[in-house]
Parts: sequence; structure tokens; C-alpha cells
Amino acid sequence: MRVICSSAGFAGATLLGEVRKGGVPPSEGGMKCRKCGGRAAIELRRHNAAFCADDFLEFFQKQTLEAIRKWKMFSREDPVLIAVSGGKDSLALWDVLLQEEYETTGLYLDLGIFDYSKVSKAKCEAFALDRGAKLVIVPVEEEVGASIPSVKQVTHRPTCSACGLSKRYLLNKVARERGCAVVVTGHNLDDEAATLLGSVLHWQTEAMARQAPVLPVTHEMLVKRVKPLFRLTERETATYAFLRGIDYVVEECPFSTDAVSLFYKELLNQLEERSPGSKHNFYLGFLDRARPAFEKLDSVPLTACLRCGQTTTGEICAFCRLADSVKRKLSAVSHQPSAPGTEQ
Amino acid sequence: MRVICSSAGFAGATLLGEVRKGGVPPSEGGMKCRKCGGRAAIELRRHNAAFCADDFLEFFQKQTLEAIRKWKMFSREDPVLIAVSGGKDSLALWDVLLQEEYETTGLYLDLGIFDYSKVSKAKCEAFALDRGAKLVIVPVEEEVGASIPSVKQVTHRPTCSACGLSKRYLLNKVARERGCAVVVTGHNLDDEAATLLGSVLHWQTEAMARQAPVLPVTHEMLVKRVKPLFRLTERETATYAFLRGIDYVVEECPFSTDAVSLFYKELLNQLEERSPGSKHNFYLGFLDRARPAFEKLDSVPLTACLRCGQTTTGEICAFCRLADSVKRKLSAVSHQPSAPGTEQ
Repeated sequence: MRVICSSAGFAGATLLGEVRKGGVPPSEGGMKCRKCGGRAAIELRRHNAAFCADDFLEFFQKQTLEAIRKWKMFSREDPVLIAVSGGKDSLALWDVLLQEEYETTGLYLDLGIFDYSKVSKAKCEAFALDRGAKLVIVPVEEEVGASIPSVKQVTHRPTCSACGLSKRYLLNKVARERGCAVVVTGHNLDDEAATLLGSVLHWQTEAMARQAPVLPVTHEMLVKRVKPLFRLTERETATYAFLRGIDYVVEECPFSTDAVSLFYKELLNQLEERSPGSKHNFYLGFLDRARPAFEKLDSVPLTACLRCGQTTTGEICAFCRLADSVKRKLSAVSHQPSAPGTEQ
Repeated sequence: MRVICSSAGFAGATLLGEVRKGGVPPSEGGMKCRKCGGRAAIELRRHNAAFCADDFLEFFQKQTLEAIRKWKMFSREDPVLIAVSGGKDSLALWDVLLQEEYETTGLYLDLGIFDYSKVSKAKCEAFALDRGAKLVIVPVEEEVGASIPSVKQVTHRPTCSACGLSKRYLLNKVARERGCAVVVTGHNLDDEAATLLGSVLHWQTEAMARQAPVLPVTHEMLVKRVKPLFRLTERETATYAFLRGIDYVVEECPFSTDAVSLFYKELLNQLEERSPGSKHNFYLGFLDRARPAFEKLDSVPLTACLRCGQTTTGEICAFCRLADSVKRKLSAVSHQPSAPGTEQ
């Protein structure tokens, strides 16, 4: 674990140049800002509005702070742990929280995914250094026993499943260790709508009952989890990051290229293109009118894992079982004499 | 209203040739029938199976009859009114019911939609004539006061909305007049999944509570409505119609070309292509696990329309108000002196 503290200045033109490669072009032609009447930098069709750069930044910040306030996510006094991946969403969110002087600690989970992890870690480090923010880096390999790409090779568990499990577990663990009452993640409207679409297509009603901008504490070992960007789209967070000169990793995780979540996002983009506001209506309408119907379904009771003390529905939690499995397999491999032709 | 009775033989080669234009090609290459091992005519990826023509027809019939039995839709003694549009679904369904000697009367609602209605009416007439089946033809213009294309011009109500309203109303009215206890429609899995997707995207929970293969009688003036094809896809009904030599209208209604329902079907087809069985899981999972949660919501009480006696949630039902509006506007137009340049 490593903590970086610095008070270096805000990243400027160079970073903007880098982000421009994959970022969203801010100019949309001759439209006018809804607020000041100046030249608009971004059109928000779903709001039937356009904003200049400054007013868009204010809009974005207001939406985020309003979500935190309205959903009682946390106060300025609460020490919060913000999960940062090096992507636009988590860094944009951290940027808003830092400007508003929330008490944040960034957590970067180093998944060990080749160059993708190296680059994204460097972006988080540079971001924290520039802003004098506190960043904790946890190599997942130290906790699980193997890097995320190696987990599949030794356990045959799907990569994204092992990764998601490890992230959820470690976020909670690190938050508790550091005395943070809240874990903040950068999930945006596109993420939430895609997750919901996946649940709806299979009517996974338990998952639907659990999906919300605030996941309350249902066990003493669990830390509250909140998603302040749930009303802002991927395009909006990209624009915010671009306009604020945030240098983020543009590439998606190499394991996600065929992920069904990206396919759902593509379907939702087709809907949004045909009918602006579709994602918003789908997710916000769910929270408002449908989720209560599923909440009533019985939830499985949680107990403490006999091994690590974090929550589980059985005796040993899924993370401990994963780590055990990795250790067993790696130990078996290291004790096996290498035979030619048996490599995979 | 007109009734056609005939006992002419089954349509043969000529009809097959016609259907081929827009129908589904029955050959899928070198696959084998799951049942007899012979050359397969259709592959059903969602069932991980392929069938020869005869065994597919048997599969289709079984699925339909099983739905009627399991969902207690109607018995062989019940006189049923089947709504036929001249399309593949309703004619395929009627074909199954006639073969099984159910007591059916076909109802063709003549919407007066230009050539589309002329062609589809002719297909229904030929189908009934060939099979000696009872067909009732009701010109919607006589009931509403104007044909469907004219309704929009005089009332500015969207065409598809006026059409849907008129169809639901007249199906119930004609069924009651003819002593039919049940109205049968040819809605297939694609139709139902697209309707559900539309409701889910807007979380129209009342519509979701009402969507089911059997709509029970909730008022003495309402006739039970059932959809025996709800487990069969559009592609499967097209194949059935093709293999049975049913001559159906291939064209979609000209007013539906930009309909959002077709867009939803296209999205669902993308899902089905990526993951066969998606439509089935989405709709059947809804019926099984989600619909009960919405059924509990309070429904609006129905009363008898003061004008026609059919059901309404107000005093005068929506159909009577539509017909009133048409009559008022047409009467105003006929009393107005024509002025140059005021035509629309």
C-alpha cells in the first residue's frame, strides 16, 4: 500500500492535448448557452439545452452535489473513500469533490492488467500529485494471490467475475481499515442504465432490488456505497473531464472489449439517439416507480465470513474462496515437475 | 358486415410462390431434424434445435395448443372470435385452430388503409373460402364515421392510437354481439417482447400489470382476450405460414413504418442474434418473476359507458368520444363554404 501526497498545480495545456485524442469535442457549432447566451460548448439534447464551457462545468457540479445532498450520500465532515480507475468518470467525480473540499481519499486497485493498469495507475498518480490529494494504491495481486489476468488461468473463473468480486471486497475492506464511512464510485447514468437493462432482460429481481444510487449498510461489516454521478451520462463526464483538463485513460479494459455491458450500452445509445432522455427515463423511472415493487422481496441474510470477518451468505466469503483457490492452484503448479508439452 | 362461408380446398403451389417473396426461406443447409434425423427445414437457435418441415409444423402446433391448455384460454366447445389482419400471425393461428376443429369465427376489421387494407382483406377472404371458415368483415368507417387514414385528418389524434383504440373496442363489441366468450389474437413473442420493452423503458407499471397471454374478464361487458402464439417468434410464424402454404400479406401497415414498436423489435433482434433465447427469457421471465410485483398495484375501476354500454374509466368511453369527434368535425367541414387556399 502506498500513499502519495502533493500540492502541485493544476494540469494544463499538455494534458488537454492528450485528452483530446479520445475525448469529446466540446464545440457543437453555432448554438447558444442556455444560461449566458454565449457560444455553446456542448449540446445536451436530453435536456433540450446547450451550455458554454463554464456553465456546463457549473451544471455538472450542481448535478453531482445535488445528488449527494438529495440522496443523503455523505456530508463534508465524512471521510470518504473514492474508488479511482484512472478513467474519466472517477477522476471527474474526484475533481468535483476536491473542489468542494470534501474529505476524500482516492483508492486505486492495481489489477495488474498489463499496460492498461500501468497507464491508468500513472494517470491516478499524476491527478493526485497535481491536486495534492491523498491516493492509496493496493495491488490486487497481494490480496488475491495473483493478478487479475492470472486468476482465470489458475481458477478458470471468468476474468470479469473475479475482478468485480475482488473490487467490491477490497473497496469495503480498505474503507473500513482507513475509517471511511462511505465508498464513492464513479458509476454514471450509462453504467447504471446498462446494468439495469441486463437485469431487466433476465428479470434478475434480486439484483434489481439492490441497484440504487445509495446502497445502505445492511451489516455492521459493510460500508455505505454511493454513486453521485448516476444522473450524468458518459458523454457528460467525458466533456467535464475534457473541459477541466483532466488527463484520463481513454482505452477500455482489454478484457471488456466483448463484454455484454458494452453491448447494452450500444443498445441504449441507439435508443437515446432516437429519443433523447431515454436512458434517464429508464433508470430514474425505475428508481421512482419500479424498484419499490422489488424491494419487498426477501433478501438473503448476511453473516460474517469465518475467515476474514467481512460479509457472506455462507460460511466462507467468495473472496476468501477465490484467494484460497488461487493459492492452492499456484502451490500445486510450483510443486509439479515441468513436463514438455504440458504448457497451456 | 359480411359473412363468407365456403368449403373450398387448401391453397397449393401458387400461393407458396407468392409467399416466397417475403417469407422465410425454409432451408438452412445440412442440419438434421432433431426428431426424425431427416434434412432440417428450419433451425431454432433459441431451442438449440432444427426440424424438418413436418416436425416443425408439429412443434408449432404443439406449442400453440399447449399454450391454450396450460393458460386455460378456451376449450373446444367455446365459440371464439379470432381477429385476422391478413398477416402471417393471425392466419397461421387460425390455421392451427381450424385443423384442431376449434369453433372459430374470423373477424377482419377493414381499416380502410388504401391498398394495404384491400390486399389484406382479400387474403383473409381467400383463406376463409379455401378452408370453409366463417369470416366476418366489419368496415371501421361504418363504426367510427371515417376510415383510419381520415381520422387523423379530422381529429388530429395520432393514426396508430385511433386505430388501436378502434380495434380493441370493436373486437370486444363484435365478440359480444356474436356470443363469443373469447377474443383470440395472433400476437407473437416478438410483439409481446417489444410491447414489454416499451413499457419497461418508461416503467409504465400499469401497462405491465395488464400485459399477459390471458386478459381476464374484469367487467361484465368485457370479453376474455387471449394470445396463443405468445411463445412463438415472428420468424417461426412466418415459417409455419410458408410451410403450410398460407398466402398472407407480407407488407407492414404503411402507418407503421416509423413506429417505435418496429424499432424495439430491431433492438430485440440484435439481442437475440447475440444471445439466442433473449426474447423468450425477457418475456417469459417477466410473466414468471416480475409481473406479480406490478399486479398488486391498484387498478382503476371500470364502469359502463353512458352512450354504448362498453367499459370506460370515465362517463363516455374513448371510442364514443372518438366517433363523436369525427362526426362533429366532418359535419363542420360539410357546412363550411369552401374557400380557396384553406385546404390542407
